Amino acid sequence: MKGRAMRVAILGATGQVGREFLRILEQRNEMEIGELRLLASARSAGSTMEFRGKKVEVIEVSEKAFEGVDIVLASAGGAISKQWAPVAVKAGCVFIDNSSAFRMEEGVPLVVPEVNGHVLKDHKGLIANPNCSTAQLVVVLKILHELGGLKRVIVSTYQSVSGAGKEGMDELDLQTKALCKDEQHAPKKFQKQIAFNLIPHIDSFADDGYTKEELKVVNESRKILEIPNLPVVCTAVRVPVRVGHSESVLVDLEKKVSVAQVRESLSNSPIVEVWDQPEENIYPTPLDCAGEDPVYVGRIRPDTSSENGINLWVVADNLRIGAALNAVRIAEYMVKHDLVGQKVAN
Amino acid sequence: MKGRAMRVAILGATGQVGREFLRILEQRNEMEIGELRLLASARSAGSTMEFRGKKVEVIEVSEKAFEGVDIVLASAGGAISKQWAPVAVKAGCVFIDNSSAFRMEEGVPLVVPEVNGHVLKDHKGLIANPNCSTAQLVVVLKILHELGGLKRVIVSTYQSVSGAGKEGMDELDLQTKALCKDEQHAPKKFQKQIAFNLIPHIDSFADDGYTKEELKVVNESRKILEIPNLPVVCTAVRVPVRVGHSESVLVDLEKKVSVAQVRESLSNSPIVEVWDQPEENIYPTPLDCAGEDPVYVGRIRPDTSSENGINLWVVADNLRIGAALNAVRIAEYMVKHDLVGQKVAN
Repeated sequence: MKGRAMRVAILGATGQVGREFLRILEQRNEMEIGELRLLASARSAGSTMEFRGKKVEVIEVSEKAFEGVDIVLASAGGAISKQWAPVAVKAGCVFIDNSSAFRMEEGVPLVVPEVNGHVLKDHKGLIANPNCSTAQLVVVLKILHELGGLKRVIVSTYQSVSGAGKEGMDELDLQTKALCKDEQHAPKKFQKQIAFNLIPHIDSFADDGYTKEELKVVNESRKILEIPNLPVVCTAVRVPVRVGHSESVLVDLEKKVSVAQVRESLSNSPIVEVWDQPEENIYPTPLDCAGEDPVYVGRIRPDTSSENGINLWVVADNLRIGAALNAVRIAEYMVKHDLVGQKVAN
Repeated sequence: MKGRAMRVAILGATGQVGREFLRILEQRNEMEIGELRLLASARSAGSTMEFRGKKVEVIEVSEKAFEGVDIVLASAGGAISKQWAPVAVKAGCVFIDNSSAFRMEEGVPLVVPEVNGHVLKDHKGLIANPNCSTAQLVVVLKILHELGGLKRVIVSTYQSVSGAGKEGMDELDLQTKALCKDEQHAPKKFQKQIAFNLIPHIDSFADDGYTKEELKVVNESRKILEIPNLPVVCTAVRVPVRVGHSESVLVDLEKKVSVAQVRESLSNSPIVEVWDQPEENIYPTPLDCAGEDPVYVGRIRPDTSSENGINLWVVADNLRIGAALNAVRIAEYMVKHDLVGQKVAN
């Protein structure tokens, strides 16, 4: 069921997530695209990118660039979003923002459509896309909550370098190549060597010893699941993997739920794939999931440390469900439910 | 305080942990070594290894090879240990075994000297060295238990390829080099590609969906800490790191303990180093800890999901505290407490 053709702008088109937006819009066909505008900084303006076999010129972001645009898909960092979101919304656009700038703001819907799409009906033009590690997690948590009631969530992440953008990917590649030749490549994007190493530090540290990345998982999960006091704790770790975030997740439930029930409910989700036949070495790894749309779940087993716990291994492409794909799905949901162009900011 | 000079044999001398035994015995000076015998399979016999500047010939393991030996440090796999441990014990040796063959056997002490060295007084010749991921964990758990009483332990591991021996290290190196040249190097030691990937599968799967590696952490921790029903759960994951196991550890305690108290108690341990100044990017990574003796702890913070929880990041060299170093420390403890040559098997 398609609505009218949408005029879409990608803000931050030349970045890692920007490129993923293009690929995803090419592959999907849920939303008809009448016009595609590629917006970036003055530095990137003038270059061209290909979309459905045609070259599209990248233009510099400006007030004028948002005129006549229905939907802006933004992934250019918090500062750029803060600058341009009000402009775009004033111009009548729906601004779907991948940065963390507005996520926790009262009145800004923070959405994974399959989890809480219903909150979009009250939007005021600005929509926030959750943090990558949160998006894949809440898809699974929502299903577990409906099954047995969430009581406590304990997460340890294994996050790929693409979460730190193209510079992160380049640093892993160049550092690895250098080390393979017994040469050095000093860390710049990351705090320490990431090749053949782990870094338990993503985003900056807050006062309580947690990183902002860890607090995002806590706070954004609570907001998306609409359980404001849900006990959640996270340890976020960068690993030398290119694309794909993995999560070791332990969930305490209010009531006892069997592994078979969990498996069935997860399998029923259109965006989850259960890969869980350990005896045949079937479980997801980030390499399997890079470039794919689903949230993959494996290693589903009863907790050995509590009565009603379920232990799982959740893997997804952080550039897709964790960023570009989820933003596009928000746009599709809004088009389908006729929520684009209906509201403007106060 | 040294005892008499010990006649030491290393069984599995040419393996990854065997070589680490040699390095550690060279570096340490707690136990005087009168004679060092290097034992291996017929295949490796005849080769030589260097110890304190002298070449020592590797000889084939046999009944005769244990004659006159006080202490055997064994790391040649479970099957070899099952074959030779009874022979060595009968010959009057103390047999300190790094394999999992005897760890859970009633009457066999499973020991990290700083945690439960006292159980060695009842030994019957055969002593088990815990699994690598358990050893570094229980050092920290013991201290937390004394502080606040352990209630529940939740662990996710990030384990290096050296835990799978030299073949594991070679596979990561060769696979990485191949991929850097856009070539392939098929997995052989590991179930899947390990370069730029993660594998949530270490050792084989048991019936309940847990791997034996995960169950080792549960069962061995309970035995070493002497808390038979301690709620423990583990997810064990192989990561593309050469040496050094990392663990994201969440501990529920019986009573409230401050981060400052935890930091102080850990700092007081002679075998723990606290690296925990996040504002200066000070926290342990496996690269920092490879080749070092301590158990490193960082990211110490109160749990955001419970009243009395403590969250930590524990890193150590899996070939040292997780294998060779701990075995040598068991030997040193036994020499110091005059427990070598005092007992023989029934």
